[in-house]
Amino acid sequence: MHILTVLYGQPDDPAAFDQHYKSTHAPLAEKIPGVQSFTYRHLATLDGSQPPYYLIAEVAFDSLESLQSGLQTPEGQAATEDVPNFATGGATLLVAHD
Amino acid sequence: MHILTVLYGQPDDPAAFDQHYKSTHAPLAEKIPGVQSFTYRHLATLDGSQPPYYLIAEVAFDSLESLQSGLQTPEGQAATEDVPNFATGGATLLVAHD
Repeated sequence: MHILTVLYGQPDDPAAFDQHYKSTHAPLAEKIPGVQSFTYRHLATLDGSQPPYYLIAEVAFDSLESLQSGLQTPEGQAATEDVPNFATGGATLLVAHD
Repeated sequence: MHILTVLYGQPDDPAAFDQHYKSTHAPLAEKIPGVQSFTYRHLATLDGSQPPYYLIAEVAFDSLESLQSGLQTPEGQAATEDVPNFATGGATLLVAHD
């Protein structure tokens, strides 16, 4: 399993981020061909300080090839191109393998 | 499910990091009371550049209370205190909830 991990920095407007993420971005991500699972979680710290990232998303594919080709489809492009619409704190994309 | 996410920065010696992580740290982490699952993955980027983090670990607990009390047990302390022994690139701890 190859997992695309996305770390979103703190947005200017968390409520607007959440609204866009849930109603627009998550449905776009789930439509990417080859996606086996898609989850996301809000982040906090153990000591209550502001974490360096606001949200982590994990998108699982069967293989690196499936991940790469999925992102290049129209659905993958639509999800990728949507990121600047809400990720005012930036987005760090990582590819993870076991 | 509450998930402790640990992001490890690039270590000085990746081979030494891997050796210590697999043989010493992972067994310590798995022994923390309340741990429901423990996984870790090495990280890369889509464009082949060096990622900001070397490895991501995810430790799942049933609740935030279970996570916090688990870390305060002797097993939790042993795992926490082991981190500086290998994490030469630093470690960022985040608590994630759905």
